[in-house]
Amino acid sequence: MNIIRYPEKSEWSKLVERPHLDVSQLNETVAAVLADIKKRGDDAVKGYELKFDHVDLPSIVVTDEEMQEAETIVSQELKEAIQLAHDNILAFHESQRFRGKKVETRAGVTCWQKSVAIEKVGLYIPGGTAPLFSTVLMLATPAKIAGCKDIVLCTPPNREGKVNPAILVAARIAGVNKIFKAGGVQAIGAMAYGTESVPKVYKIFGPGNQYVMAAKQQVSLHDVAIDMPAGPSEVCVIADETANIEFIAADLLSQAEHGIDSQVFLITTSEQVILDVQAEVNRQLELLPRKEIAAKALENSRLVLVHDRKEAIELSNAYAPEHLIIQTADYEKLAEKVINAGSVFLGEYACESAGDYASGTNHTLPTHGYATAYSGVNLDSYCRKVTFQHLTAEGIQNIGRAVELMAAAEQLDAHKNAMTVRINSLK
Amino acid sequence: MNIIRYPEKSEWSKLVERPHLDVSQLNETVAAVLADIKKRGDDAVKGYELKFDHVDLPSIVVTDEEMQEAETIVSQELKEAIQLAHDNILAFHESQRFRGKKVETRAGVTCWQKSVAIEKVGLYIPGGTAPLFSTVLMLATPAKIAGCKDIVLCTPPNREGKVNPAILVAARIAGVNKIFKAGGVQAIGAMAYGTESVPKVYKIFGPGNQYVMAAKQQVSLHDVAIDMPAGPSEVCVIADETANIEFIAADLLSQAEHGIDSQVFLITTSEQVILDVQAEVNRQLELLPRKEIAAKALENSRLVLVHDRKEAIELSNAYAPEHLIIQTADYEKLAEKVINAGSVFLGEYACESAGDYASGTNHTLPTHGYATAYSGVNLDSYCRKVTFQHLTAEGIQNIGRAVELMAAAEQLDAHKNAMTVRINSLK
Repeated sequence: MNIIRYPEKSEWSKLVERPHLDVSQLNETVAAVLADIKKRGDDAVKGYELKFDHVDLPSIVVTDEEMQEAETIVSQELKEAIQLAHDNILAFHESQRFRGKKVETRAGVTCWQKSVAIEKVGLYIPGGTAPLFSTVLMLATPAKIAGCKDIVLCTPPNREGKVNPAILVAARIAGVNKIFKAGGVQAIGAMAYGTESVPKVYKIFGPGNQYVMAAKQQVSLHDVAIDMPAGPSEVCVIADETANIEFIAADLLSQAEHGIDSQVFLITTSEQVILDVQAEVNRQLELLPRKEIAAKALENSRLVLVHDRKEAIELSNAYAPEHLIIQTADYEKLAEKVINAGSVFLGEYACESAGDYASGTNHTLPTHGYATAYSGVNLDSYCRKVTFQHLTAEGIQNIGRAVELMAAAEQLDAHKNAMTVRINSLK
Repeated sequence: MNIIRYPEKSEWSKLVERPHLDVSQLNETVAAVLADIKKRGDDAVKGYELKFDHVDLPSIVVTDEEMQEAETIVSQELKEAIQLAHDNILAFHESQRFRGKKVETRAGVTCWQKSVAIEKVGLYIPGGTAPLFSTVLMLATPAKIAGCKDIVLCTPPNREGKVNPAILVAARIAGVNKIFKAGGVQAIGAMAYGTESVPKVYKIFGPGNQYVMAAKQQVSLHDVAIDMPAGPSEVCVIADETANIEFIAADLLSQAEHGIDSQVFLITTSEQVILDVQAEVNRQLELLPRKEIAAKALENSRLVLVHDRKEAIELSNAYAPEHLIIQTADYEKLAEKVINAGSVFLGEYACESAGDYASGTNHTLPTHGYATAYSGVNLDSYCRKVTFQHLTAEGIQNIGRAVELMAAAEQLDAHKNAMTVRINSLK
């Protein structure tokens, strides 16, 4: 782990820099697959499933029988855990419902917003050895609350053509209504353009590898919206001398195990914390099955010693971490100063894994510094705010002249005239 | 104008189709300019201003003297109109302030959202003959309410090196704090990367030509967020036999004058309305200075006769217009059925130009069918919702076991361990 003591502010931009993510060298390959999906639909999806996932699928649709089979495979204990997590995610995202207020900006001029669900959304869940059923809950639960009509899920099957049963159980609990066996670029293309089986959606959510990222970028230029740009996961811990060293070490490692490119950042006002965390990380690391990955990620980690808590939060804001854990005596005060972060965990018991799974907050969050401009996934991500306005004759009299003057100054005479005919009708 | 009577549902997708917008052929040119701005900063901006805007600028910064001069040029009457419009935009966007609720999803597990302003935003205002000072109000007013620290505006100067005075007055009223003389790709690059004069921003807003669109797309892949994808402006009017023909014709023309690619769509249950609107459009068209442009746009317009109001709103939802004007006897009922639209204007007095300038709603709206997935610019566009959570020992006891089970099932043992060390500390 890299220890940096009292860095000058001029060194901060270097310190918070992430490795450059450029998926443009994949663009040609990705574009070719997307074009093929657009042209040949399901047949193309099946072809790429054979090529990339090594499975010959008679159909890409997950059947009712497969859904029922999944229920028998997943343990009752895990089902109950998924249900508990779902209920908390539901409670927190339900609380985000928006009620627009009618505002009379002038007498006779009334404006309001209404939150309307995106009709069709697509969720992508990557495959691989670890089934990310928690991400199914995170992406589908708010879609269901919002009232999205089509909640489509694509995930790659294994070599036997099966989807992981925990993913199917989570999908049932969260209210996904259409599940397809498709991974990678072909899944993104299927949801962006629609195929015989897969409905075209208006917005695509979910994580994925570089190919999935590149595909999401490409389809987002013309065809669909996407949740946010992606990058490796990251955590920043701010700790003072009151922090629990064992907990900090465990939190840093839970980030490090995600992948060799995971970002681990500790900011502290205490030299002792740095030394103790380092020792404790090394101790815990030995016990981890994913020790190799975590060790590799830790090579790029940064343990930064700063003068005071003010500097600590400033550095964290400059870093704009996906996850920010604040373990200091005055975490409530520091929390108020957070400007750039995806999700913030306060106090010694709020570990990142609580929010990753079951506290109720969403775990789909902006990485790579995108927290400066993007929110994590939340209920708003599945809705649009449509504005409405109503004017009376009095409203026309109150704003009509201003509209005429401004339209004339912008040399838009037909705009002016649309107001003039209404003013004249009242004379 | 094209009249379509009782189209079959199977023909709708063709009917609502927009011309394909592909700016990819500009990508190389745009990428070269962006790379140069990134490398050479202000010098490069000045170089492209000379090349494209034919002006040799000693400095790209708008000075206090220029701000003061603008105040003396703009008429008192126009200033008051701009102030009135600003105050209404302020009132409506102020009402959109978000207050997060603390939610206890389980005893001891508390989650909440906080809305935090994006620190640095960049606004682009195109040049040309008509100065879009109304767009300055629309983009800067909510940025100011949100509390964005740096509100940067770029707009191209004229050949004398001056920015239109109405733009400067609107910028002063709305609270822009840094104004630069830069247009097109060089302006987008300057705000995306920062130069010696222009601060790097985290999100870029505003309209522009194809080069600006392509530049916004490119920088949005890695460097900054953008407001939304762009396309030609459009209006859809739903009218029944009670509608005011003169008003409808004026509204259609106010859309048509924007540009030859503007989209004009009328849906009605009355054959007579189609005939009357057509005659009235032709009459009003003759009186317009921008008659040529409007006439060209009208060549692609569609006047669609449908069986009933239900079909009318369904077709409008399939079209997903930027602006939707509903002039029917039961406009309130139809308004409830709107799913896809940017901004909706209800009743005979709510003309689009009211919302374009002064009612208080925003006029930066999703075009090209993007209303299916995107909102127009609103206060949220300038904020992120950061989530916070706090857990107590009781909270750990309530969700800890579920987190352990789920993490284990996802094969993320360090995630599990971060919870286990906390559970064990309580034993």
